[in-house]
Amino acid sequence: MQLGKIIGTIWATRKYEAVTGYKMQFVQPINSEGKNIGEPIIALDTVGAGPGEIIYFVTASEAVIPLDVDMAPVDASIVGIVDSINIES
Amino acid sequence: MQLGKIIGTIWATRKYEAVTGYKMQFVQPINSEGKNIGEPIIALDTVGAGPGEIIYFVTASEAVIPLDVDMAPVDASIVGIVDSINIES
Amino acid sequence: MQLGKIIGTIWATRKYEAVTGYKMQFVQPINSEGKNIGEPIIALDTVGAGPGEIIYFVTASEAVIPLDVDMAPVDASIVGIVDSINIES
Amino acid sequence: MQLGKIIGTIWATRKYEAVTGYKMQFVQPINSEGKNIGEPIIALDTVGAGPGEIIYFVTASEAVIPLDVDMAPVDASIVGIVDSINIES
Amino acid sequence: MQLGKIIGTIWATRKYEAVTGYKMQFVQPINSEGKNIGEPIIALDTVGAGPGEIIYFVTASEAVIPLDVDMAPVDASIVGIVDSINIES
Repeated sequence: MQLGKIIGTIWATRKYEAVTGYKMQFVQPINSEGKNIGEPIIALDTVGAGPGEIIYFVTASEAVIPLDVDMAPVDASIVGIVDSINIES
Repeated sequence: MQLGKIIGTIWATRKYEAVTGYKMQFVQPINSEGKNIGEPIIALDTVGAGPGEIIYFVTASEAVIPLDVDMAPVDASIVGIVDSINIES
Repeated sequence: MQLGKIIGTIWATRKYEAVTGYKMQFVQPINSEGKNIGEPIIALDTVGAGPGEIIYFVTASEAVIPLDVDMAPVDASIVGIVDSINIES
Repeated sequence: MQLGKIIGTIWATRKYEAVTGYKMQFVQPINSEGKNIGEPIIALDTVGAGPGEIIYFVTASEAVIPLDVDMAPVDASIVGIVDSINIES
Repeated sequence: MQLGKIIGTIWATRKYEAVTGYKMQFVQPINSEGKNIGEPIIALDTVGAGPGEIIYFVTASEAVIPLDVDMAPVDASIVGIVDSINIES
């Protein structure tokens, strides 16, 4: 899984209809100090995260598992909202 | 999923026949400001996107799901045409 | 599989509930000399590794296999604690 | 899928036997102008491509689909020979 | 698949037990001229390769296929020892 921050939302009316009721969030991957890593990706939100919140997301096949359908063309899902990160020194 | 822009089309007559009726689009991955990210990929178009349109695509196994066959050697599919992107400030 | 070092732990209360009893470790990928490679990832710990230990982890679908559930939205798992690395010269 | 050019062939006698009758081609990924992108990969050829030809290939699980076996340790397959690429201006 | 060179071995006693009888080799990915590409990975050896030998390996789900178990948390396997590479000029 990877850390990320919700930075926006994507809207689409012409799309493959398989998953409804989940927001498509725009997620900026970040490191443990909150610095951006690479480019944002689009992930389905399964936990109700809001703008600016720090989350973690799964990618690839596993992204379909938390959805309420058997199969969906989804390759990234937000699966948790981070409370704290403890870095050992 | 990732944002992309349709920049062209690929034609092939000698190919593995499993999927017909879908265009093979040449897609340039972009970020939320429309800047290019990395190199274009080839994706099957399941939503009828036209040249220049901003779309989002899925990769890996999930790319087969929106097609009307059970299995196909396809690892990227266009699954939505973007109406708007709201970036929080 | 990849080598990594446990550098911290992630806590989340609002999350997709499917896997319990495993710590979410923050893992820094390293090379055979212990130098950092890229950015840390979040992995489920199936072997009880402690902070600072050198481990190896699997990614993608295989990450679900060592867990005691059939399906879980998990894309990285720690599956071994490294005793030694022998580099041929 | 990605564009590539056949640049050579790999021979191996000691290997896991599961797939026979397919050449292992050495493929240089390229962009739409024919410039090299990254490093060559090894892909099974399911379409009979020759040296120098421009092809497209699939990666990951989908690479097994065009083969005449149910399972094979193959993660990249050539699935089409490119006739033309139309880039919109 | 990718070319690599066996550069060492990894030993672990505390690990998820699912696969026995295979060495965990440390593999440096290389290009066709033998130059290193990126960082070494850990792969299960299914063909009995020795130190310094040039091999090719598969990654992701396909890595489980050559093993004598149905499921294993393994994401990279050595599946062939390279005899020769013919690069077209």
